[in-house]
Amino acid sequence: MIDLRSDTVTKPTEEMRRASYQAEVGDDVYGEDPTVRKLEEKAADMLGKESALFVTSGTQGNSIAILSHCQPGNEVLLEEESHIFLYEGASASALAGVQPRTLKGMRGAMRPEEVNAAIRPDDIHFPETDLICIENTHNKAGGAVVPLENMEQIYGIAKEKGVSVHLDGARLFNASVASGTPLHAFASNTDTVQVCLSKGLGAPVGSILAGPRSFIDKARKWRKRLGGGLRQAGVIAAPGLVALEHMVDRLQDDHDHAKLLAEGLGNISPLTVENEVETNILLVNVSDTSYNANTFLEALKEKGVLAVPFGPNTVRFVTNYGVTKHDIQLVLDKVKSVL
Amino acid sequence: MIDLRSDTVTKPTEEMRRASYQAEVGDDVYGEDPTVRKLEEKAADMLGKESALFVTSGTQGNSIAILSHCQPGNEVLLEEESHIFLYEGASASALAGVQPRTLKGMRGAMRPEEVNAAIRPDDIHFPETDLICIENTHNKAGGAVVPLENMEQIYGIAKEKGVSVHLDGARLFNASVASGTPLHAFASNTDTVQVCLSKGLGAPVGSILAGPRSFIDKARKWRKRLGGGLRQAGVIAAPGLVALEHMVDRLQDDHDHAKLLAEGLGNISPLTVENEVETNILLVNVSDTSYNANTFLEALKEKGVLAVPFGPNTVRFVTNYGVTKHDIQLVLDKVKSVL
Amino acid sequence: MIDLRSDTVTKPTEEMRRASYQAEVGDDVYGEDPTVRKLEEKAADMLGKESALFVTSGTQGNSIAILSHCQPGNEVLLEEESHIFLYEGASASALAGVQPRTLKGMRGAMRPEEVNAAIRPDDIHFPETDLICIENTHNKAGGAVVPLENMEQIYGIAKEKGVSVHLDGARLFNASVASGTPLHAFASNTDTVQVCLSKGLGAPVGSILAGPRSFIDKARKWRKRLGGGLRQAGVIAAPGLVALEHMVDRLQDDHDHAKLLAEGLGNISPLTVENEVETNILLVNVSDTSYNANTFLEALKEKGVLAVPFGPNTVRFVTNYGVTKHDIQLVLDKVKSVL
Amino acid sequence: MIDLRSDTVTKPTEEMRRASYQAEVGDDVYGEDPTVRKLEEKAADMLGKESALFVTSGTQGNSIAILSHCQPGNEVLLEEESHIFLYEGASASALAGVQPRTLKGMRGAMRPEEVNAAIRPDDIHFPETDLICIENTHNKAGGAVVPLENMEQIYGIAKEKGVSVHLDGARLFNASVASGTPLHAFASNTDTVQVCLSKGLGAPVGSILAGPRSFIDKARKWRKRLGGGLRQAGVIAAPGLVALEHMVDRLQDDHDHAKLLAEGLGNISPLTVENEVETNILLVNVSDTSYNANTFLEALKEKGVLAVPFGPNTVRFVTNYGVTKHDIQLVLDKVKSVL
Repeated sequence: MIDLRSDTVTKPTEEMRRASYQAEVGDDVYGEDPTVRKLEEKAADMLGKESALFVTSGTQGNSIAILSHCQPGNEVLLEEESHIFLYEGASASALAGVQPRTLKGMRGAMRPEEVNAAIRPDDIHFPETDLICIENTHNKAGGAVVPLENMEQIYGIAKEKGVSVHLDGARLFNASVASGTPLHAFASNTDTVQVCLSKGLGAPVGSILAGPRSFIDKARKWRKRLGGGLRQAGVIAAPGLVALEHMVDRLQDDHDHAKLLAEGLGNISPLTVENEVETNILLVNVSDTSYNANTFLEALKEKGVLAVPFGPNTVRFVTNYGVTKHDIQLVLDKVKSVL
Repeated sequence: MIDLRSDTVTKPTEEMRRASYQAEVGDDVYGEDPTVRKLEEKAADMLGKESALFVTSGTQGNSIAILSHCQPGNEVLLEEESHIFLYEGASASALAGVQPRTLKGMRGAMRPEEVNAAIRPDDIHFPETDLICIENTHNKAGGAVVPLENMEQIYGIAKEKGVSVHLDGARLFNASVASGTPLHAFASNTDTVQVCLSKGLGAPVGSILAGPRSFIDKARKWRKRLGGGLRQAGVIAAPGLVALEHMVDRLQDDHDHAKLLAEGLGNISPLTVENEVETNILLVNVSDTSYNANTFLEALKEKGVLAVPFGPNTVRFVTNYGVTKHDIQLVLDKVKSVL
Repeated sequence: MIDLRSDTVTKPTEEMRRASYQAEVGDDVYGEDPTVRKLEEKAADMLGKESALFVTSGTQGNSIAILSHCQPGNEVLLEEESHIFLYEGASASALAGVQPRTLKGMRGAMRPEEVNAAIRPDDIHFPETDLICIENTHNKAGGAVVPLENMEQIYGIAKEKGVSVHLDGARLFNASVASGTPLHAFASNTDTVQVCLSKGLGAPVGSILAGPRSFIDKARKWRKRLGGGLRQAGVIAAPGLVALEHMVDRLQDDHDHAKLLAEGLGNISPLTVENEVETNILLVNVSDTSYNANTFLEALKEKGVLAVPFGPNTVRFVTNYGVTKHDIQLVLDKVKSVL
Repeated sequence: MIDLRSDTVTKPTEEMRRASYQAEVGDDVYGEDPTVRKLEEKAADMLGKESALFVTSGTQGNSIAILSHCQPGNEVLLEEESHIFLYEGASASALAGVQPRTLKGMRGAMRPEEVNAAIRPDDIHFPETDLICIENTHNKAGGAVVPLENMEQIYGIAKEKGVSVHLDGARLFNASVASGTPLHAFASNTDTVQVCLSKGLGAPVGSILAGPRSFIDKARKWRKRLGGGLRQAGVIAAPGLVALEHMVDRLQDDHDHAKLLAEGLGNISPLTVENEVETNILLVNVSDTSYNANTFLEALKEKGVLAVPFGPNTVRFVTNYGVTKHDIQLVLDKVKSVL
């Protein structure tokens, strides 16, 4: 099987498994796991933030951020197809009691003037706009990189109005590698940031939430309430450290493979590639074939290729560590064979 | 002052005050206020529902409906400029933990096919779509009547998918009078409905939430939790009864006045009337004048006319019981005098 | 029927009805109801607080206080039989996400040293103790007055530890009249206070929440979210003003009647009076009769006397404005007749 | 250092590390991690439940249970010193909106008649009692085993009244080994159960929540919302499997060591052992020494022994996999040396 469903399917490398096997551990609830500490310090440093917290998933990092920034009855601005809004079980509302207010973006990037206009003035009828969430790269927009300039503009508005900004950077490493912009440059235009160690970086479990020290102290308590306070967490922090130290640069391969796949599929009539491929995500429209997204995926699966539906006639392919350049050629052959 | 800010400014009539003065009362927490009971029975009957509950405001009726229909982590579909989403302090998320998902309507009416597409399939990542809220008439769309046919289509989809429908009928009486459609015809295309006794009907305080008996039993408990369980509530239910019995038909006057005002303002260059006036709400655009909404309102206020801003260059006028046909002519004169 | 179930059954006086009939009103959501304003100013003044808010019930006042003081995950200390814990539908947890922690009191008064010990230190496992709630008079303790000195000690501890104090003063007027302590003396030992205008004072609807101006501003928003923001609320504020101005001193009658009833019942073997009667509440134990609480109440009801169960063998009688000295004698006769 | 602070400090065994290193993994959000599946099936089988879910901590398992059983405004009965009430950051109220109602137990066991009396009847003022939580062994009661008979009685009452029962079995393996009662016998007297794979069993991370299949389906969604849905979770499930297969019987050693330590300390005047030692927890009172809990712990720490305070004058020792019989003798010597 060539698995292009997501970069979340990446299996840990031999180096990661070894790091886990050998990891020095302690009880992290007591703050005594040296590997977790090392990971948190390394991540804070890379992101240019005072402090960082190891969490078990991107969803947990985002939820903790919202719980720590907001109070019930606040409003959060975010892009209308953002992961937090679409794919996290409404946890922002369920756990934190906040109302999401969605804005339609351009390739995942909200327009600064619309963000500005959506921030609520003071009025007895209105929730208080307390937080803006940006997703970079933006999954549903096909792994689009939200431009640094866009983030700067939004952050400027936010600071002027006293609103916080959180970055869902589940794939921020992809944005950084694709754009040549350092991680901390993105992160410096937000108050807090979440990045995933799994996905393209291949760690089996875990994400990082980073921000000011006082914020992370508050977040640590919320992590405990969500049940994310772990014991000898070094066994999963160790692969996370390997991910940060040795797996970032290789994302370029995934991006190259995605472009290769896009070129190839673009040449297979009547498929059309919906997105400009900047990173490792590719959206393909099958409307002009005899398939819809689901039947197309079934046909591919029989040929040994996995992907996921992203709309009635849209299929998403995500290149990842488990997929080689050779695999891409195989995928193109298999796609041709079902059309 | 001619007050066109809202129909909520209506003061109780002499008949209402007398009804309150003479009302037979009891402790409604014990279910012993005969006037409240009579009001609830009358309202349930008019709306064609099994049971009804007297609540202290439209916001309370809507919040109780959402609390009684939904569980935390559910998703609620509603129009993107609906009152529940814009003007109720995010109480659906704050109190009930639900995520609102907004759809852009046409004159306040959501497109049935978009409603259908927005209902979430079963997936570990997704909140469960549990409720659709419709607002009729739609305030932000300028008092537009959501057509009965539109409601029928949405209700059909909802029933097929096992989703409930709640009607925010704060101004449902206006929709009924304007369209000639009976109240219960609208209400029969929803599971539950909230209607206001204040606003155009002029009662000083109160709304009604109606639905199946088991739903209202649940709602009564939530009303208690929100602090809406009152003691000798007959003193405010009595004017509500007067509102239902004697104030519905007169809404036609408000609608006539609004049309008169629209015609008049439409002839005053360079003002433009933004909405097709169906009921008692009028949206006027001042972009082509030297004013913005706020400065225009200040100028009018000095002349003795009150209205409210509804956007940077949009002003809302609402005709109501306190405003006569003669007042409309005065308003037109005063508007002319400031341009 | 002689109704001793509660002082909440009190019907509005002729003076209250007339005040309502004549009340000057406006839209209180716009802050324009002069009668509501007058009531809020009068109440703030009597309680010695900067600002006050008219709410529709004691439960609403308490819930708004907790929502305005606390954040989800906080802990609130309160007496184990307090009204907030026992009789408000768990709204503190349901709406505000706080954990109540109960302490057993002495005649409703929590021991200061136990309050002190229960305030949580800073620890990743612990909720943050954010609020202490005191109830005075204490309903379940039989209308007991919580001594001013007890409140002073608890408030001292609270201030030292940075914890807020809220007073559920649903029957604070009774405490004041019975003890000769001015209202503001009690209120000065709390940050915020809720008092009921219904109950012994006889207004048909409404309570007051008072505290610092910034707190009341926050509370006003939460009142709106709970649906307690009303329109021409002057019609119920007017009787509330009458209650504050003319109905406080007469509570002495209720207390005298309660003592008379206690003496009488204490002489009727084998009944025992459980509480030292300080105000208008009387708890009578029927264990040594052939009745339990429910069957005793049924027997009394047939004779034309109403009260409520307060335990398997305990019956609560509450004297109130509708009950005269003569009625007390009748009640004693009727009780004798069923034994 | 001899670390007797908790059994949570246990470090993973060589066998566990190897199992993790070699674990077959997949993306568990897609349900494709074979090691997680194997663990969940094994755990469900041992507990006699239809289905089980791997969660990242005991707190997470308990919170998910409460979120899946209850709705906001419900009441949960639990022992007044239970872990859920004291040590989980009020997450039941913060996340699930439920009100805890605490009962004082006897060695951690609530009295069935008190549980029965505390279940609320139907009343507009009352939260609905929806869940009873039992903790076995009971940590704060010194690792006391809640007798099977007690659980049977409570479960009988619960089923009669339509209330669910959840077992916080963080140390249920200790209860089973100490009492000779099979795990499933305890679990058969509850609807759902949480057991920890860390603590005495030594896995680095993780707990199990088990119950009916439909309940676990619901719980899986809540786990996702809390951010506990992991990717290649096999790396931590593998040590969990080792824990279940090879680490249960050895708990007897911890119990033996705890008894040895209790005997020894009991003979060191003026220390007193507060609890009857049934499992691996020992509570020692230092009131009659010159120390309080904190200063005693500091003195011990300088000698190389760690424990935790459990009250102003109470110290808790927990035997665990990292502590040998020889260590116990050393601890006794060191304790003597500081007195």
